[in-house]
Amino acid sequence: MYQTQAYAAESATSPLDSVTIPRRDPTDKDVQIEILFCGVCHSDLHQVRNEWQSVMPTVYPVVPGHEIVGRVAKVGSGVTKLKPGDLAAVGCMVDADGTSPQFKADQEHLCPSCVFTYNSPDMYGTAPVTYGGYSDSIVVNEHFALRVPENLDLAGTAPLLCAGITTYSPIKRYGVGPGMKVGIVGLGGLGHMGVKFAHAMGAHTVVFTTSPGKKEDALRLGADEVIISRNADEMQKHVGTFNFILDTVSAPHDINVLLGMLATDGNLTLVGASEQPMEVSGFSLLFGRRSLSGSIIGGIAETQEMLDFCGEKNITADVEVIPIQKVNEAYERLLKSDVKYRFCIDMDSLKTA
Amino acid sequence: MYQTQAYAAESATSPLDSVTIPRRDPTDKDVQIEILFCGVCHSDLHQVRNEWQSVMPTVYPVVPGHEIVGRVAKVGSGVTKLKPGDLAAVGCMVDADGTSPQFKADQEHLCPSCVFTYNSPDMYGTAPVTYGGYSDSIVVNEHFALRVPENLDLAGTAPLLCAGITTYSPIKRYGVGPGMKVGIVGLGGLGHMGVKFAHAMGAHTVVFTTSPGKKEDALRLGADEVIISRNADEMQKHVGTFNFILDTVSAPHDINVLLGMLATDGNLTLVGASEQPMEVSGFSLLFGRRSLSGSIIGGIAETQEMLDFCGEKNITADVEVIPIQKVNEAYERLLKSDVKYRFCIDMDSLKTA
Repeated sequence: MYQTQAYAAESATSPLDSVTIPRRDPTDKDVQIEILFCGVCHSDLHQVRNEWQSVMPTVYPVVPGHEIVGRVAKVGSGVTKLKPGDLAAVGCMVDADGTSPQFKADQEHLCPSCVFTYNSPDMYGTAPVTYGGYSDSIVVNEHFALRVPENLDLAGTAPLLCAGITTYSPIKRYGVGPGMKVGIVGLGGLGHMGVKFAHAMGAHTVVFTTSPGKKEDALRLGADEVIISRNADEMQKHVGTFNFILDTVSAPHDINVLLGMLATDGNLTLVGASEQPMEVSGFSLLFGRRSLSGSIIGGIAETQEMLDFCGEKNITADVEVIPIQKVNEAYERLLKSDVKYRFCIDMDSLKTA
Repeated sequence: MYQTQAYAAESATSPLDSVTIPRRDPTDKDVQIEILFCGVCHSDLHQVRNEWQSVMPTVYPVVPGHEIVGRVAKVGSGVTKLKPGDLAAVGCMVDADGTSPQFKADQEHLCPSCVFTYNSPDMYGTAPVTYGGYSDSIVVNEHFALRVPENLDLAGTAPLLCAGITTYSPIKRYGVGPGMKVGIVGLGGLGHMGVKFAHAMGAHTVVFTTSPGKKEDALRLGADEVIISRNADEMQKHVGTFNFILDTVSAPHDINVLLGMLATDGNLTLVGASEQPMEVSGFSLLFGRRSLSGSIIGGIAETQEMLDFCGEKNITADVEVIPIQKVNEAYERLLKSDVKYRFCIDMDSLKTA
C-alpha cells in the first residue's frame, strides 16, 4: 500500500477538499497510472451529494472521477498491454470477477460483479470503497486500462472515457452512417459528443435543443441542422423522418413528441434518465414499429475501439480545463449548464493543493 | 357493381344486423372471393362502438371483419396469383397507392396510403368506406389476397390474418428460436398464437398470466412454463432472464415489472396498447440495455410467409365457430374474455339470415 493525494467529500453537504488516500501496490496484473487529467461528469456531483441514494448510496469519504487520462508509472510482472511511460486511460470501471456471461461477451459494464471506479466495494480491501480519478495516482488491473492514441489532446481525451463511450456505443449499435437522419437531443457533455460521432460516421446530424443560443455552436460541432424543440412549427416539419435519435437529457421531458419524430422502424435511445418515470404512449411505438431503448457506457473492447476511432478522426471533447481547487465552483456551474462542454481537471494542480 | 349480404352496425349503440351492401365488379387485377369464415377481432368491437374515435372515427354503417378466408369465385384478366376455386385469404388491408418507400419495402401496412379492410375510404367509390368480412363476398386487388395452405382447418386459419401475423411478425423480427427464453404476456386471441409460434420456433416459451386457471391450457398450447404474474415470489425467480417478451395485453399494467424480467439486450414488444400512456422507468431501460418496441400486423409478403409456416407446422388458432346470428352475443362474451381463443363466424349462416 502507498499513500497518494486526492480530493474527497466527507459528507453529502461538504465541499470537496484535499485528502490523502491509500492505493494498493500493483500486483502482477496491475498498472499504476500517474493521473494527468480527469473529466468532471454529472454523476460525480450526483454521488458526492448522495442523490442516487436509493440505488447506489454514497460511502464517505468519496473520491469521484471516472474520466481518467495519465501515464503509466509502473506495471506488474504479468502485464502485457502497457509499459511504463505509455499514455493510459481508465473509465467507469476497474474490476469484475470475470466469470459472468456479460464479461465473456466483452460487456464488462453489464456484469453483476462490475466494480465501478469509485464508490464501489474495493475487492482488494485497500479501502472500504474504490477511490476515483480526482487523485494523482490510481492502480487498476490491466484489463480495465485503455491505450490512448498519441495524437490526441489529453485534456479533451479524458471525457471520452464516459461521455464519449456513452454516446459512441448506441450510435455504433444502431448502425449510424451515411444516408441516415440522426437526432441528438440536448447539447451538453454527452450531446456534444453525440454530434461529433454522428457527424464523423457520415449521418445527417440534427440537434434538438431548447436554447436558440446553442444553434451556432451546434453547427460548429458538426450538426447539419438545429431544431429549436420549443418551436412547434419547426418540430412539425420533421415528424416521422428520423432513423435514430440519441436522447441525452436527464431532466423530465415529453418523450412521445420525440418518438413521433421517428421514421418507420426508428429507434430512440436514452443515455440519460430522470428518476421519475416517463409517460410513454403505446400507440407512439406501435404505429411505425418504433422502439425505445436505454444504453449505459460500453464494454472495454468497445471503449478501446472508440478511443482508436477518435485518434483516427482526431475527435476529443470540448473542455474547460480547471485546477482542482476550482472543482466546487465547477459543480455549481454544472448545475446551471454553464460549461462548454465538460470541465476537465488538470491534475498537476493537485501538487499545490 | 353487385349487391351482397353482410352484417353491419348502423350506429355506435346498434347491434350488428343483416344488410345488403355493394361490391365493385372485379377489375383486371381484382380477385372476387366467396367468404367462408371470418374471425372476430377485438378491433371489430372497438370500431363498431366507435371507441377509436380520436384516431379512426367510425363511418356508419360499418361492416367489420379482417380475418377472412374463402374461395376464389372470379378473377380479373390480369390476375396471376390466384384462380377460381383456389382458397384465398384477406387480412387487415385491401389497398395502397403503391408509391411509398414502405410499400416498396414490403411493409404495406405502414404505408401512409394503406386502405384498411373496413372503415377506410374506398378508393373505387363503391361505397363511402370499405366494407369488411362479415359478408358473403369481397373483391380485392390480387396484391392483397393471400394463398392458403390446403391442409389447414379453415375456421382456425381465419384468425391467422390478424392475430397470427401480429404475433408472428415481432417473434420473427427478434430472431426467436432455440436457446432463447421468450415470454408471452396474456393468453387471449393474440397471446395463444404467440405461444404457438414461439414454441414452433424452438424457444423456451413462458406464459405470464394473471389467471391460475389458464395454466393447464397454456401448457397444452405449447408453453414450457407458466408464471402467475400476481405471485411476486414466482416473478422474482425470473428477473433478468428473458431474451424477448411479447406483450399482448391492452389493459393498463405495470410495464416496468416486465422490463425487469429482460436479460441484457432483451426486448419487450407491445402488440396491444391502452389509450392511457404507460409509466416507463428510464433506468429499467438503461441498466441491461433493454428496449421497448411496438409492432402492428405485418406486410403482405410476411403474412404469406406466416401462412406457409402455419401450413408446414399445421398451426391454426383455437376457435369457437359461431353463426353470424350470434355475433352480438359473441361481442359481449369477448368483453369478459369468455372465449378460447377466437370467435370465428361460419359465413354459411349468412345465407339463412
